Amino acid sequence: MSKISIVIFDKFTDLDLWLMWDLLNRVRIDGWEVKILGEKDVHLSATNIEVKTQGRIEEANQSDAVLFVSGQGTRDRIADENWLARFNLDKEKQLIGSICSGSLILAKLGLLNGKTATTYPTAKTALESLGVEVVEKPFVAHGGIATAGGCLAQQYLIGWVIENLADADWKTLVLKSIQPVGEGLFFDDVPNLTKLYAPKVNKAQV
Amino acid sequence: MSKISIVIFDKFTDLDLWLMWDLLNRVRIDGWEVKILGEKDVHLSATNIEVKTQGRIEEANQSDAVLFVSGQGTRDRIADENWLARFNLDKEKQLIGSICSGSLILAKLGLLNGKTATTYPTAKTALESLGVEVVEKPFVAHGGIATAGGCLAQQYLIGWVIENLADADWKTLVLKSIQPVGEGLFFDDVPNLTKLYAPKVNKAQV
Repeated sequence: MSKISIVIFDKFTDLDLWLMWDLLNRVRIDGWEVKILGEKDVHLSATNIEVKTQGRIEEANQSDAVLFVSGQGTRDRIADENWLARFNLDKEKQLIGSICSGSLILAKLGLLNGKTATTYPTAKTALESLGVEVVEKPFVAHGGIATAGGCLAQQYLIGWVIENLADADWKTLVLKSIQPVGEGLFFDDVPNLTKLYAPKVNKAQV
Repeated sequence: MSKISIVIFDKFTDLDLWLMWDLLNRVRIDGWEVKILGEKDVHLSATNIEVKTQGRIEEANQSDAVLFVSGQGTRDRIADENWLARFNLDKEKQLIGSICSGSLILAKLGLLNGKTATTYPTAKTALESLGVEVVEKPFVAHGGIATAGGCLAQQYLIGWVIENLADADWKTLVLKSIQPVGEGLFFDDVPNLTKLYAPKVNKAQV
């Protein structure tokens, strides 16, 4: 059983939710569950797209992996002490990660103390002001804490989650499946790709 | 004024809508309009995410660019002659493109006759059965018709749309803005990136 939570909020960057959501939903192993969490039934993206949440943010505290999305909305979240206080994450038992300015939330939760981290270029100064040493890399992991910067660096972040909660073969296959044809994905990959489109299996269904 | 239509349907691949949507929405020029079109008020993605449409598919016929998403749902669409008959696209006046198995729709609309095209590996046989010569490339454009294969090849497809309807500078900046930090996107890109987050301008607002 692997429970993965993606935490969203108003004014999040669309691509920073949907790339990780889509990749994570390609894994077909028993009990693999991915949920979009928020503090409301519906959150509005940076482009005003309505997204229904599938649970409240407190569920993140019981997840195996917790991922924070990004966007202008992170600036409101890190100023909301009541929202931050609803998280009780455990970096010894959980994988905790962020894309782009989601790193600001990790910092405010005290998860980046004494660690290097990465973020989106426009969030670098804000992250530094929270006492974090920011490095110009796509992905930085220290134990169970990881930050990624630049939307497409979600591939590193989600690869890290899948490798840790599933295995390296699933990581390789899932990441391969979204590459451009002829540049990482090939027509003779079809037999492997069909694994990603099998009906979902969970104990309730079996 | 540039009107861009993204056509969705039930059982579409989430990433194949949201990557193009997010990239297209980063352009800030006067009258740039991007809409998600469907045949219903709400369509369900391959992972059962509800997406509200912003117009009906007939609006595509008056757009400057029309883009078809992908997913298992394309197989139902190409079997629905009533749905296909609602399109009256003009390859001389419009840019018309597809990602992954969206190419099956272009083929059924007669837009790939005598042309090479690309698609997702699992859709290659179906595209060939419609008489199209399928090539193992991420992106194939012939005049106003383009096909892309593999989710991340949307970068080529959307780059082509932006270069044609805006300019090469917008294309370069938008595509740069989603690259991983240190691998195409850098901390000193901040001054340019802020152009992408300016308030949207249109004539009604000015």
